[in-house]
Amino acid sequence: MSKFLRELVEKCVPGVSLDCVVLGYQNNVLKVLLLKYKEHNAWALPGGFLPQGQEMEEVIGLVLKERTGLDGVYLEQFKTYSSINRGWNCNEISQEGFNKLRSTWSTADRTVLDQWFNQRFISTAYFALINCNKAEPTPDAVSEECAWVPVNELPNLVLDHKKMISEALSQLKRQINFLPIGKELLDQKFTMLDLQRLYESILDQKLDRGNFQRKMMKLGILTRHEKLMTGAQNKAPYLYSIDLKVYDQLIKTGISFV
Amino acid sequence: MSKFLRELVEKCVPGVSLDCVVLGYQNNVLKVLLLKYKEHNAWALPGGFLPQGQEMEEVIGLVLKERTGLDGVYLEQFKTYSSINRGWNCNEISQEGFNKLRSTWSTADRTVLDQWFNQRFISTAYFALINCNKAEPTPDAVSEECAWVPVNELPNLVLDHKKMISEALSQLKRQINFLPIGKELLDQKFTMLDLQRLYESILDQKLDRGNFQRKMMKLGILTRHEKLMTGAQNKAPYLYSIDLKVYDQLIKTGISFV
Repeated sequence: MSKFLRELVEKCVPGVSLDCVVLGYQNNVLKVLLLKYKEHNAWALPGGFLPQGQEMEEVIGLVLKERTGLDGVYLEQFKTYSSINRGWNCNEISQEGFNKLRSTWSTADRTVLDQWFNQRFISTAYFALINCNKAEPTPDAVSEECAWVPVNELPNLVLDHKKMISEALSQLKRQINFLPIGKELLDQKFTMLDLQRLYESILDQKLDRGNFQRKMMKLGILTRHEKLMTGAQNKAPYLYSIDLKVYDQLIKTGISFV
Repeated sequence: MSKFLRELVEKCVPGVSLDCVVLGYQNNVLKVLLLKYKEHNAWALPGGFLPQGQEMEEVIGLVLKERTGLDGVYLEQFKTYSSINRGWNCNEISQEGFNKLRSTWSTADRTVLDQWFNQRFISTAYFALINCNKAEPTPDAVSEECAWVPVNELPNLVLDHKKMISEALSQLKRQINFLPIGKELLDQKFTMLDLQRLYESILDQKLDRGNFQRKMMKLGILTRHEKLMTGAQNKAPYLYSIDLKVYDQLIKTGISFV
């Protein structure tokens, strides 16, 4: 048995896995980081198993470091998936993916590994917020591609990973006023329209431009900088950055637009 | 070994438990349902283990039915607790509680049960919203009391149950506009002040009476009824009820007071 698989069975908490919905923002589009299985038309969320002596956050942090090159990513646990119907036989895509993986194991190893992978698995899911421009997507041992995919154009996903993405987005929407979305998802300087587009992507609705600008300015979290010089002087929009001291304080109690 | 303990070890998912922060509202105070251990000054949240063939929601539903007599209680999963430091030896109260429990086991059973209770446990926590007036608190086999306790006056709690309560309250606060708090926590008819006090308890801040009434009426979820006749006619407040059809629809997208 390979060192990875032996350590898995010997050192990890049985029946527990971790998944991470890594959300990023690029060209006004909300995206999720996915891994494409080797020689199989199925994608999956980054994740892993839980070593006995390690905390879940620590493990997810290491997974993110490996898949994106980034440290200290904003992370939030949002739900644990435990349904009795979420095994590798839950749909065709998952079953095929598992069979491909299984075909790489020696016959001798299959008894142990089948037992491991066929037990009831409970997966705790996190979402992470990342600036796509800072990340370097990197495949893992069982995947051939790691890519940012628009959340509205999801490919075939294994297990209940599509549901996880959908529910992570619901949580992001529900808690938008408590999360540092501007800080984590945008570049340091951005236009008011960039910020509005970000809120619109997450809330999945158009917002009134005048209202949005007025409310944002009233919060006192934006510092205005020079204009973004790309076209005519009189049409150039101002650049803004976030006053992190005020912002972090506001996020704790929830940004209120009332 | 008792039937209960044998079934536990043989039929439940190892290392997985469930806890429920049952929140109720009574006399303008937010309360949580707690169990007091037999012959021990320690309290705990209602909860249980996860039988292999059952869904978590189903098990929590059964626990709530047994502890309150109620079916179909409003439930939401909010976090999974998995820290390597959350075992029965995490604090004195928990260790004493466990030792008391252990002293009731036969020497022969201890080997099996110690192994079960000393493995790393991952607990998925839910919160429930209940009208205290409808529930009949009922102790379980290891407790001598089941009672509503104000969330601001918590007694000694085992394990990380105090943290669970605190984080359930944070979630309730964060998601107040997405949860049917009025529907689940109040009686069918209530005064505007009752509703305001409920929001104030959850948000832990005073709200302006005029503003609150104006915003609530604007949502179109309240039906006005007769006056509550307790004192002088001209000071008697109106009674209201919730228009569930409008309310349930609003909750889905989040009640917006903007």
